Amino acid sequence: MQQITLKVSGMSCGHCVNSVEGAVKAIGATGKVDLAGGTVTVDFDETKLSVDAIKEAIEEQGYDV
Amino acid sequence: MQQITLKVSGMSCGHCVNSVEGAVKAIGATGKVDLAGGTVTVDFDETKLSVDAIKEAIEEQGYDV
Repeated sequence: MQQITLKVSGMSCGHCVNSVEGAVKAIGATGKVDLAGGTVTVDFDETKLSVDAIKEAIEEQGYDV
Repeated sequence: MQQITLKVSGMSCGHCVNSVEGAVKAIGATGKVDLAGGTVTVDFDETKLSVDAIKEAIEEQGYDV
């Protein structure tokens, strides 16, 4: 398992938290958003997922990573 | 039909717009959020709905009206 913290801009409310954490969960990882800090910390299996795939999943929700 | 514009605080993104407009729609009225202005303008049938009921529906989504 590996952990990364990504800077995500445009998250402004609890719905945004759900969108981002949901997107991460949908690809099989676990994300925890820090709304005040504008970051998401993701735990993922590096043999199954790439950082690019995680970034892409979040970007698809309309946020810049 | 009657129209009111309510000041709603805490709306910060497109998800918030959907929450507020959805709450208004769910009680049979039509709401249009102005995110920049922090307001929602609601068209409703005053013989069926009160302003208090509209405020309550929005407050239930976690916003202050």
